[in-house]
Amino acid sequence: MSAQPPDRPLSGVRIVEISSFVAVPLAGMTLAQLGAEVVRVDPVGGAADYRRWPLTQSGESIYWAGLNKGKRSMAVDMRSPEGQHLVQALIVEAGILITNVSGRQWHSYPTLSAERPDLIHLEVVGRGDGSTGVDYTVNAATGFPMVTGPADHVGPVNQVMPAWDVSCGLYAALAILAALRRRDATGRGSSIRLPLDDVALATAANLGFLTEAMVTGAHRPRLGNAVFGQYGQDFTSSDGVGFMVVALTPRHFSDLTELTGTTKAVAAVAEALGADFNDEGQRYQHRDVLNGLFGAWFRSHTAEAVAAALDSSSVLWERYQSFAEVAASPRVRANPLFAPLDQPRIGTYPAPGLPMSVDGMHTAATAAPALGQDNDTLPAEWLGR
Amino acid sequence: MSAQPPDRPLSGVRIVEISSFVAVPLAGMTLAQLGAEVVRVDPVGGAADYRRWPLTQSGESIYWAGLNKGKRSMAVDMRSPEGQHLVQALIVEAGILITNVSGRQWHSYPTLSAERPDLIHLEVVGRGDGSTGVDYTVNAATGFPMVTGPADHVGPVNQVMPAWDVSCGLYAALAILAALRRRDATGRGSSIRLPLDDVALATAANLGFLTEAMVTGAHRPRLGNAVFGQYGQDFTSSDGVGFMVVALTPRHFSDLTELTGTTKAVAAVAEALGADFNDEGQRYQHRDVLNGLFGAWFRSHTAEAVAAALDSSSVLWERYQSFAEVAASPRVRANPLFAPLDQPRIGTYPAPGLPMSVDGMHTAATAAPALGQDNDTLPAEWLGR
Repeated sequence: MSAQPPDRPLSGVRIVEISSFVAVPLAGMTLAQLGAEVVRVDPVGGAADYRRWPLTQSGESIYWAGLNKGKRSMAVDMRSPEGQHLVQALIVEAGILITNVSGRQWHSYPTLSAERPDLIHLEVVGRGDGSTGVDYTVNAATGFPMVTGPADHVGPVNQVMPAWDVSCGLYAALAILAALRRRDATGRGSSIRLPLDDVALATAANLGFLTEAMVTGAHRPRLGNAVFGQYGQDFTSSDGVGFMVVALTPRHFSDLTELTGTTKAVAAVAEALGADFNDEGQRYQHRDVLNGLFGAWFRSHTAEAVAAALDSSSVLWERYQSFAEVAASPRVRANPLFAPLDQPRIGTYPAPGLPMSVDGMHTAATAAPALGQDNDTLPAEWLGR
Repeated sequence: MSAQPPDRPLSGVRIVEISSFVAVPLAGMTLAQLGAEVVRVDPVGGAADYRRWPLTQSGESIYWAGLNKGKRSMAVDMRSPEGQHLVQALIVEAGILITNVSGRQWHSYPTLSAERPDLIHLEVVGRGDGSTGVDYTVNAATGFPMVTGPADHVGPVNQVMPAWDVSCGLYAALAILAALRRRDATGRGSSIRLPLDDVALATAANLGFLTEAMVTGAHRPRLGNAVFGQYGQDFTSSDGVGFMVVALTPRHFSDLTELTGTTKAVAAVAEALGADFNDEGQRYQHRDVLNGLFGAWFRSHTAEAVAAALDSSSVLWERYQSFAEVAASPRVRANPLFAPLDQPRIGTYPAPGLPMSVDGMHTAATAAPALGQDNDTLPAEWLGR
């Protein structure tokens, strides 16, 4: 870790991670990208996520490599007293544990804080009541699957992006930075508990989805790809390319009517319906007739012509793309966020650092470790054994 | 702000926010919940999100109230030199600005850091190249809409949860804490740039979606509600209730075959197909036949019987619920994450604090301000004018 600039925010901070899947690995990786020395401790042979798909042809997990970049690795028999004592000693030395393996007394807060009173101990759990939950089950009980998907679809539609896991991982990283700041100021450690379900519920409430149901009793409908309360819709060009188009402001909207040649027709519709399309809510309420007017223009123009017209306007828009198209695009290939990463066992490919630049600089990704690669060196470095 | 416990991590930290929509308001609210004094500065009459849906019957934005809890508010004519000078003075006093209003020289990093060299200045932008983007347009170009939605659906399906906005807001809060730590250690400020598009691209790469396309060239199919690379599927009970069911481990899976009475049939299928269902990938690859076996059991049992059987197993599961059901459920009503919030102009309802508890305690939410409510007091408090 000696090549890191000395002024990374978490330089000199050591963290032990006992984890699997997305949230805690993402938290640990994020903290490592901020300069911490993070050691992921796994059972011998790897944790439950060690062979998670997608895999390379030789069976290496692309997923695991993606979420463990820049960490060190120990593989320890955590069922043996010797293994547990070693990991306990590493945690006490580091002063910070992040984990989603709950219910193990040997690495619980009470056990470890007896050895190190200013310990920062963060545990991600499924639900606040202690029961289990993963992104896909938590998501089912948020409300979102009932409003996601084509408007005429019956039944729930899951989002593929594991938004709760990702949000939970970022809240976990944030909680560690906050606890470090408090410890620096007061000398006190923290016992932090972060339920995945509570991340989802807090987010659904903060964004108004739950609060709307509480306050107005309104039933949020399934809208397909329309944007609730705004004008936003997807359209298809004459050559079958999908576009997402959003008009948040009166200027966006008038630009959209102008480029689609519908300014007069939209004005006539507004007059006939007594509608004021300067009001975002009215653009939303009358979206069907607006979709009809604009859709005809999209269907009669090629993707190239559509893109050119949208590009010379203020309208917010994007072409729908597959993962393969995104991966090959200049947004990835010519983006300073990505740098070539030589990932042993997998290959060399562009990989992202943290999404923010600081003083114009991005952190470059470093490779994920081989499982147990630091078994021989880390105890000596940290513990002198 | 005097009722806050003195050991909140950001106690004593002042932040100016010039924002609209989700990401930066969420960042500011999160920092306020960690103890910072955050003043959101808006144009007179409110920013572009001030009337965003959902609204109460009297036209108050439930959305705005949800994302500005615990902040102070100034409403300033930021087109006038006097207004700009006032806001500049507030930022210089606070030492931290978070904004998604870019391209304004008067509150740019070069202008403001000339007055306060250790300024922390965070700007959320649409895309790294400076072009515009919002969650809905950024999402179109991630790849996710092409794999979200019913397996037989043609065309993109947007996720309704604005996952990029939320992730961006959390990365922004994290970046501020990291920059504060660096400033404490070195005295140096930070100019931070966080493109919403880069949040999405980094996440899609970290989770393996983009990397898979780069490394193996595999085309990720649209799976409906199945979980990629694992056994996870939704089912419907005899009385029409939807369930999401996930079996990550061999134990989960054998419990699922046992409770659905399919253990023998699944073993016979495994033998006939030469499959090993102890392997998560093989459970995924053969999901259609497994869905068929399990689905028959779900269709012939009531939701009550399904829930009872799942509950007494290790299987991960949840019943699909609407926002109204979630809002009324004990997961919200009996959850210490939520506390009654008296929100002027809207009403009293359960509102969440931060999703993590620290030392067993949650931060309670405090109300969103009235627009401009601190116009008369804040300049005196901060600037002595």
